[in-house]
Amino acid sequence: MDVGEFQRWMDERYGDRDRKRGLDRSFGWFVEEVGELSSAFRKGTRAELEHEFGDVLAWLASLANLCEIDLEQAAKRYQDGCPRCGKMPCECPFVA
Amino acid sequence: MDVGEFQRWMDERYGDRDRKRGLDRSFGWFVEEVGELSSAFRKGTRAELEHEFGDVLAWLASLANLCEIDLEQAAKRYQDGCPRCGKMPCECPFVA
Repeated sequence: MDVGEFQRWMDERYGDRDRKRGLDRSFGWFVEEVGELSSAFRKGTRAELEHEFGDVLAWLASLANLCEIDLEQAAKRYQDGCPRCGKMPCECPFVA
Repeated sequence: MDVGEFQRWMDERYGDRDRKRGLDRSFGWFVEEVGELSSAFRKGTRAELEHEFGDVLAWLASLANLCEIDLEQAAKRYQDGCPRCGKMPCECPFVA
């Protein structure tokens, strides 16, 4: 599905609760999921890894909804190559 | 664009470098971008917010590439409503 469609899904499923909870507390939930992803890197099954990637993406989309940022528009910055060096593949000297 | 297409973009632009850098160090970059997003919540312009959302999404896709996880497949867990309670909108009692 489109990045924008996924973001709309999150609004339909969680938008009211996200707005009641607010940005700061929602960011806490997002960071908790980032921690679970990190844990899955070390000891997760493939299914658990996929689950945690989905959850991090979902909370990121919720945060974008709360900020009224279009995630698809944000993603388009990468459309023509690396947005820093303009090359594809990236030739930035400092991303080690 | 599709979530899967965006993930492929990241592989084309950054895949070689991501694989050389490895998962642990790439996760460090991802977390750095999460910090920049948090900073943008407090003091960023709209453009800076959009920029940081894009960067977090990009690093998340790089991490998924490194783990050979299909981010679009991971996102589909949310297709039919909240994956925990099965409702749309979510009726989970504990997501305050």
